Amino acid sequence: MAAVTITREEVEQLVRRIVRERTRPSASALPTLLVEASARHAHLCRADMDTLFGEGSELTVFKDLYQPGNFAAKETLTLIGPRSRLISNLRILGPLRKESQVELAFTDAISLGFNDIPIRISGDTEGTPGCLLMGPKGVVELKQGLIRAAIHVHMNPAGAEYFGVKHKDVMRLRVGGAAGVTFDRVTVRMDPTVRLNVHMDTDEANACGLHYTKEIELMK
Amino acid sequence: MAAVTITREEVEQLVRRIVRERTRPSASALPTLLVEASARHAHLCRADMDTLFGEGSELTVFKDLYQPGNFAAKETLTLIGPRSRLISNLRILGPLRKESQVELAFTDAISLGFNDIPIRISGDTEGTPGCLLMGPKGVVELKQGLIRAAIHVHMNPAGAEYFGVKHKDVMRLRVGGAAGVTFDRVTVRMDPTVRLNVHMDTDEANACGLHYTKEIELMK
Repeated sequence: MAAVTITREEVEQLVRRIVRERTRPSASALPTLLVEASARHAHLCRADMDTLFGEGSELTVFKDLYQPGNFAAKETLTLIGPRSRLISNLRILGPLRKESQVELAFTDAISLGFNDIPIRISGDTEGTPGCLLMGPKGVVELKQGLIRAAIHVHMNPAGAEYFGVKHKDVMRLRVGGAAGVTFDRVTVRMDPTVRLNVHMDTDEANACGLHYTKEIELMK
Repeated sequence: MAAVTITREEVEQLVRRIVRERTRPSASALPTLLVEASARHAHLCRADMDTLFGEGSELTVFKDLYQPGNFAAKETLTLIGPRSRLISNLRILGPLRKESQVELAFTDAISLGFNDIPIRISGDTEGTPGCLLMGPKGVVELKQGLIRAAIHVHMNPAGAEYFGVKHKDVMRLRVGGAAGVTFDRVTVRMDPTVRLNVHMDTDEANACGLHYTKEIELMK
């Protein structure tokens, strides 16, 4: 054994592991982790809601989501892409937001005729492509807001303390099973009001066979 | 440092790394690795070719593929799923095979109305679902053969020696970039006639943003 050389990185890994094991709360403190696939959807601002569904109209709840206060709305839109191809019945998620935004998987974007849409954290839409949105009362030309949402984990301070991470840190999510995949860039989105919850898009969920497996591990 | 405990697994990892570094051929021997997305496609047997395109008909080359002798054919099919939904212009890959087989991404399967298709290595179609295939000269009821192809790497003996793997071993493929993903179950398919080549499906390619990145690493 004396002849084995150990790199600095390996020593650091060992030390980190030992420190982590000694300081980590007991396993029973592991928060429940829900991993979900988000199908393509839109978020609307007040002004676009007015144009698309009528002045002063409100979203109505179709189904509550796991995150408190969030819901899938009964209202849907038609999205028209750059080559006049369209996606109908695009679900709107409520409540209304400051800016309208559309989240698509690459498969959706390609089927619409986009060569490329940027991978962004929700809300970070500066310089992203736009599209036309059509509702029962009117049409909105979205100047920007079309993104592929980066895979992310919603986390409250207790979860962040458990995992030893902070807002915007990048974690890994291992999904086991026949199509085992590790997502290496899962961004932490801290918020005191949220439940521990990974959101991936439908391409990611289909790639890893999310519906097939119960072997899931979130790692720093 | 004396107080750091090292697990047996960690010692084994270190030893393996050192042995590998000392015995590996020089970096210049690394074979060229091409990673490709396979869009949905069909393979046909002689009998089904006869039914779909006429007695004694042959596939014609639309585009040669990276693997010698393989090609995308000009001929395409219509695939009809369990809820009468269909995929038109399903590309056929040549040459003809012993058994007909259809390879779909989960996104395709779901859009067709399949709740589930099994993840299999090409050719392993026992007990998989079937479908209807429609060609210009007839219809074939495929009793089985619908699969999601498991991500795999075609490798010849030189490549296998380089990586220290054998037929049916499972490797990992790390794809870096904004949507960094590591595929943890890449099956080795050994054949003396092939070039080093990873095939993933469109869901997997879209999940990792394959078109975005040049950071790719195949690992034992």
